[in-house]
Amino acid sequence: MNQDYIKANVWSILEEDFDKERIQSSESLFSLGNGAMGQRANFEEDYTGDTFQGSYIAGVYYPDKTRVGWWKNGYPEYFAKVLNAPNWIGIHVKINGEVFDLNTCSSIQNFKRELNMKEGYYQRSFTATLPNAVQLEVISTRFLSLKFDEVGAIKYQIKILNKDADVQLTPYIDSGITNKDSNWDDKFWNTTNILEKANSAFIELHTMKTNFKVCTYMNTKVNVGDKEITHTNTLKEETKIGFEYNASVKKGEQIQLVKFGGYTVDRNHPEDKLVDAAENAINQATAMGFDALLEAQKLAWGLIWEMADIAIEGDVKAQQGIRFNIFQLNQTYLGTDSRLNIGPKGFTGEKYGGSTYWDTEAYCLPFYMATKNQTVAWNLLKYRYNHLEKAIENAEKLGFKNGAALYPMVTMNGEECHNEWEITFEEIHRNGAIAFAIFNYYRFTGDYSYIPEMGLEVLIGIARFWHQRANWSEKKKKYVILGVTGPNEYENNVNNNWYTNYLAKWCIDYTIEQLDKVKEGYEDDYQRIMGVTKLIDEEVLQWKKVADSMFFPYSKEHEIYLQQSGFLDKELVTVENLEKSNRPINQKWSWDRILRSPYIKQADVLQGFYFFEDHFTTKELEKHFDFYEPFTVHESSLSPCIHSIQAAKLDRMDQAYQFYLRTSRLDLDDYNKEVEEGLHITSMAGTWLSIVEGFGGMRILNDKLNFHPRIPEGWNSYSFKINFRNRIIKVTVTKEGSFYEMSGDEEMTIRVNDKRLVLKSGEAIKA
Amino acid sequence: MNQDYIKANVWSILEEDFDKERIQSSESLFSLGNGAMGQRANFEEDYTGDTFQGSYIAGVYYPDKTRVGWWKNGYPEYFAKVLNAPNWIGIHVKINGEVFDLNTCSSIQNFKRELNMKEGYYQRSFTATLPNAVQLEVISTRFLSLKFDEVGAIKYQIKILNKDADVQLTPYIDSGITNKDSNWDDKFWNTTNILEKANSAFIELHTMKTNFKVCTYMNTKVNVGDKEITHTNTLKEETKIGFEYNASVKKGEQIQLVKFGGYTVDRNHPEDKLVDAAENAINQATAMGFDALLEAQKLAWGLIWEMADIAIEGDVKAQQGIRFNIFQLNQTYLGTDSRLNIGPKGFTGEKYGGSTYWDTEAYCLPFYMATKNQTVAWNLLKYRYNHLEKAIENAEKLGFKNGAALYPMVTMNGEECHNEWEITFEEIHRNGAIAFAIFNYYRFTGDYSYIPEMGLEVLIGIARFWHQRANWSEKKKKYVILGVTGPNEYENNVNNNWYTNYLAKWCIDYTIEQLDKVKEGYEDDYQRIMGVTKLIDEEVLQWKKVADSMFFPYSKEHEIYLQQSGFLDKELVTVENLEKSNRPINQKWSWDRILRSPYIKQADVLQGFYFFEDHFTTKELEKHFDFYEPFTVHESSLSPCIHSIQAAKLDRMDQAYQFYLRTSRLDLDDYNKEVEEGLHITSMAGTWLSIVEGFGGMRILNDKLNFHPRIPEGWNSYSFKINFRNRIIKVTVTKEGSFYEMSGDEEMTIRVNDKRLVLKSGEAIKA
Repeated sequence: MNQDYIKANVWSILEEDFDKERIQSSESLFSLGNGAMGQRANFEEDYTGDTFQGSYIAGVYYPDKTRVGWWKNGYPEYFAKVLNAPNWIGIHVKINGEVFDLNTCSSIQNFKRELNMKEGYYQRSFTATLPNAVQLEVISTRFLSLKFDEVGAIKYQIKILNKDADVQLTPYIDSGITNKDSNWDDKFWNTTNILEKANSAFIELHTMKTNFKVCTYMNTKVNVGDKEITHTNTLKEETKIGFEYNASVKKGEQIQLVKFGGYTVDRNHPEDKLVDAAENAINQATAMGFDALLEAQKLAWGLIWEMADIAIEGDVKAQQGIRFNIFQLNQTYLGTDSRLNIGPKGFTGEKYGGSTYWDTEAYCLPFYMATKNQTVAWNLLKYRYNHLEKAIENAEKLGFKNGAALYPMVTMNGEECHNEWEITFEEIHRNGAIAFAIFNYYRFTGDYSYIPEMGLEVLIGIARFWHQRANWSEKKKKYVILGVTGPNEYENNVNNNWYTNYLAKWCIDYTIEQLDKVKEGYEDDYQRIMGVTKLIDEEVLQWKKVADSMFFPYSKEHEIYLQQSGFLDKELVTVENLEKSNRPINQKWSWDRILRSPYIKQADVLQGFYFFEDHFTTKELEKHFDFYEPFTVHESSLSPCIHSIQAAKLDRMDQAYQFYLRTSRLDLDDYNKEVEEGLHITSMAGTWLSIVEGFGGMRILNDKLNFHPRIPEGWNSYSFKINFRNRIIKVTVTKEGSFYEMSGDEEMTIRVNDKRLVLKSGEAIKA
Repeated sequence: MNQDYIKANVWSILEEDFDKERIQSSESLFSLGNGAMGQRANFEEDYTGDTFQGSYIAGVYYPDKTRVGWWKNGYPEYFAKVLNAPNWIGIHVKINGEVFDLNTCSSIQNFKRELNMKEGYYQRSFTATLPNAVQLEVISTRFLSLKFDEVGAIKYQIKILNKDADVQLTPYIDSGITNKDSNWDDKFWNTTNILEKANSAFIELHTMKTNFKVCTYMNTKVNVGDKEITHTNTLKEETKIGFEYNASVKKGEQIQLVKFGGYTVDRNHPEDKLVDAAENAINQATAMGFDALLEAQKLAWGLIWEMADIAIEGDVKAQQGIRFNIFQLNQTYLGTDSRLNIGPKGFTGEKYGGSTYWDTEAYCLPFYMATKNQTVAWNLLKYRYNHLEKAIENAEKLGFKNGAALYPMVTMNGEECHNEWEITFEEIHRNGAIAFAIFNYYRFTGDYSYIPEMGLEVLIGIARFWHQRANWSEKKKKYVILGVTGPNEYENNVNNNWYTNYLAKWCIDYTIEQLDKVKEGYEDDYQRIMGVTKLIDEEVLQWKKVADSMFFPYSKEHEIYLQQSGFLDKELVTVENLEKSNRPINQKWSWDRILRSPYIKQADVLQGFYFFEDHFTTKELEKHFDFYEPFTVHESSLSPCIHSIQAAKLDRMDQAYQFYLRTSRLDLDDYNKEVEEGLHITSMAGTWLSIVEGFGGMRILNDKLNFHPRIPEGWNSYSFKINFRNRIIKVTVTKEGSFYEMSGDEEMTIRVNDKRLVLKSGEAIKA
């Protein structure tokens, strides 16, 4: 990808060229979201070129019937799809009777897109000449309100540059939309009612099968110069309604449309009050008006940035990268609703389906813990507790019993919705990440209450799963875990994936510890939990036998843990020695070739070293990094961040910086050549980790914040804030040293480079 | 399944009950075929109950667009489907204006089906009472002519038993058919022309995409008593044509319809002459008439049975089983066309798609070699030679180079048409079976000519594949083959499947041997082949290194070769100790559970011991049999036959007999609970093997026939014939001894129980 496609800028994503080949990539990159809804940066006006239309409503999905080549027992019947939602942004534009369409314009100049991340809006402007020689200037400004999360707003301004012209604007809403990735071309939506009231229009509809009820709406206002005009006709189709505004516009004069639109859903309102709720949203929006609502947007984003920003001095691209990541994460999930989660593509595309992967626990939780208040992380954990029953059912489908829980690989509502056997049935390490998140939450927040209230039940289900999933190898005189796929999905159905085995053992040990702690400190909860889970001592003893005798593949020769049994039988040619034409292997090679190769998609053994850092020495980390990284192709978006953190820990700052760029600009520079499908939202949390835990070296040890700050060569400084146990610590790292500033009343002790540092409120202390 | 469903009978398959639940099973079991076309035993008249309609034309297929859950590079774009062909058997029957439909009759008596295997026809008879109280007797006789293989014939006789009645018969042909297993509900056929001439009707049509042109036709003749009547109306629909015959039939009088029908295809005729060819077929059929054509059918089947029959005295069920197998094999493939092959379901169902699996080489070839003339086997080998180029292309798609060939797992035209990665990309042992068939052909026939003419090129492609597919393990200091699926498909992506590794080594060694032999004896061929393949000595040396240092997983403790690396890590609970409720595991367990279990779908290590029997001692066989058989669930139709042969060799005749019953009556007794989908045609050749090679102990050693005859306890005798190098040897085994009778002029030496026996023409010699 042309590196100049996206212009470097510290606060904005900028594109300054109109290129039909890049429309779909830009639609992803300039996506908007406000946690409750989101949309790709599709044009408001008609566009006949290649485009990928996408609007999405949080938590509204469709269970598409599973499609496989060959059915296998245990496959989920349905695949929960991120659902393309009704289009509320559309505006048909005609000039002198000719449809305005950038794909047919004879010339386009000064085309510019800006995603203003600081203030939370998207603007597109250009001048264009239509086939009928009318030349016009367009400025379109759009945002999804944080203040009223059911409201989106568009200001669409046209100036006719070269003559007087008749302009027809028809803003519309349209529920006749489909999913690009539909398996069977099912109809996903059923429209039940279309109505208009003055300048507002409403479509009521519901999803098939899941029966989510939605009202999509719009309110429109058109001015020619200073004069407001009214619509003269209503366009009504089976799934669409629009208002036709006609005006004669003088040369140099501007016609402006303000359109508010969005959705109300029965998750938040009684299902027979969705139109009323939409009217209420319109009233709130029109009472403020576009400009005031945009001001409120800036304020709301200001508050987010106040806590979440990472400022980098001396490296514009690095700065742009991290802000893009933080911005998109906040567009996707704000943590206010425990029924929602963080989809890997957020509101920017359909791919992957489902909203929740182990990404949430492994990558996203630390970001939200540190940049939001504790409730957000609690909500993320509660989400899994709410799904525990479904996880037990899921395990039962695969032959497990007695309350063993296997959380799904991909889910919307707790049910599994992925259908490759090597992933769904075998990528079971996801279960461990959920237990790890419980540990991590307590480590970071110091709030133990989740464990007796909810977490211990989750842990018991998970421990039971691992106990049943392992089997005794008479040959090895150890417990083994056969037939798994580790985090490195370029290996399938392997035996004794070290990461999985290690996590399994840890899960059991950790669960047993928590059983003791809850028994001692939370007697009522303990009794309740024992009642629900019917756990007896004998079963725990059996778990312990598995944990105590778990097998870990190890190479004495290399002094490393092996990614899996038999890894050393591979032809160990490093990535460096692989001809470039083979890359990316997931696009160039057949699956069998990938599987028998030594190439690693993302951190696997090193992911374990990341989670359980303090179980290993730095020397051990170095040995494992040196062995595995050379075979790693980083073809998962989740790979470079972990490697950046590990490289930083090993003081290899050049390498750490390269990995950082790759993670932070993965989508902006389209490393994996797939940005048109949507953004890699969950890996963006990994980018944050690579600065805070990687360069900043932040760790929580014995209830204390620790830092080992490092700085990439080209940077002058960087700074970030951490919300640690209700106190905000601002960390600034410069070439000269690092500085720590705390808000809050009491003193606080942290450790920097293993030395104690006592922080006092409002003072920046140099370490 | 009720064991009385199919009545025991030495020459016929009999059903004597009307059971709506069994209609689809019987449609499979009573299927007809003549090598060129075939059909399930669907009723001629309308039937509104559950039915699986199927007519098939050899070599006419449809490339259905591949359907997968998640696309992987190298997947074939199309999946060649066995195509449901136009229905030519249909007859609408109305009595007093009421449609005759067995699903709505108020009573059905004396319902009987007979598949007369000796004479090659299918007959159904019954009396039935319609809702309008008319009682009728129906006898329907149907066969697909061996004499004219484009002709099928039906005699449909109705007698009205209780009153005079108006009968309307509308025989029709219909091209508006679909496939049950269509992926995308594509239209597979396009009808282009419908015409009628006197008592004949024709539909011309072609397949979409592949553009196979077909004419389906019928000729009809109706008699009431002795009097022929003519049709009074023509039913014409978009894809259907029928002739309406109306008659008043007196109580006790018979109305009889003779219908000839079938297909002419552009594989055998110019595409613009298909109607002419169909008229020619009609002329041939009508000139002979139904009865004479049926006589010819009996003669033709008599000739087949003369050579292929296996007669068993003292065990009706065993006798019925083997004849059913031999009959169905001959219905499927007669070996007269090297463009055709033996589909696993023959002409009895759609499942599996494609026509050619490794089953052909591993199981079917020996049957056809021994019961037909040599050309049939030659044609089967030539089929693969014709596909060599496609096999090289297939290997290239998977990253192999330099003329390496990977034959497809499933094919119609040489292209791969299966799309599970663990099968398509990894079940590569199929390549070895093709090489083994070349060896086996020469071993049996003594005809070396195939190797210089065609076989060596095939072998070179295969050897190149194995050489490239293995890799050096620095750890083991051996060549390993990683990421394969062996014959036991209940293991996927395993390393060093012993069978695959052994076959790979053998293929290379055998190819090198043949290179030397051809070089010495067939200089011209050798030069031609070297020119085409660009093979150089250095490459052969590289092959040899791989063959010489191949790794074979072995357990010193158990003194057995391991099915694959790591097999002993499994929880080794034998099938006997598995609760019954778990069986069959492919219907009860999720895929991951099957994969990590020790359970074996079909012979894997033991398949290798079968192919390469003389490489191992009987003691070694015993050890391996005793280790693996207890873990074998025999959920593949190809499993019991090999186990029967091995058990016989180990003198465990009770076990051998149990396996024999299971293979020979697999479909008749529906062991795998799936007979309604069609019959297991290719495994039927395995049944033949289990008698001839198992009980008979037939082997070819040093160009000589060898026998080690054994007889199951309940049998009085059994006998079979072998066409060995153009001499027919009849073998009869009794409790008192075995007898050998030869046709042909010269003496012939065979070995029985390792002793020489000299056969003279026409004398039965006791061993």
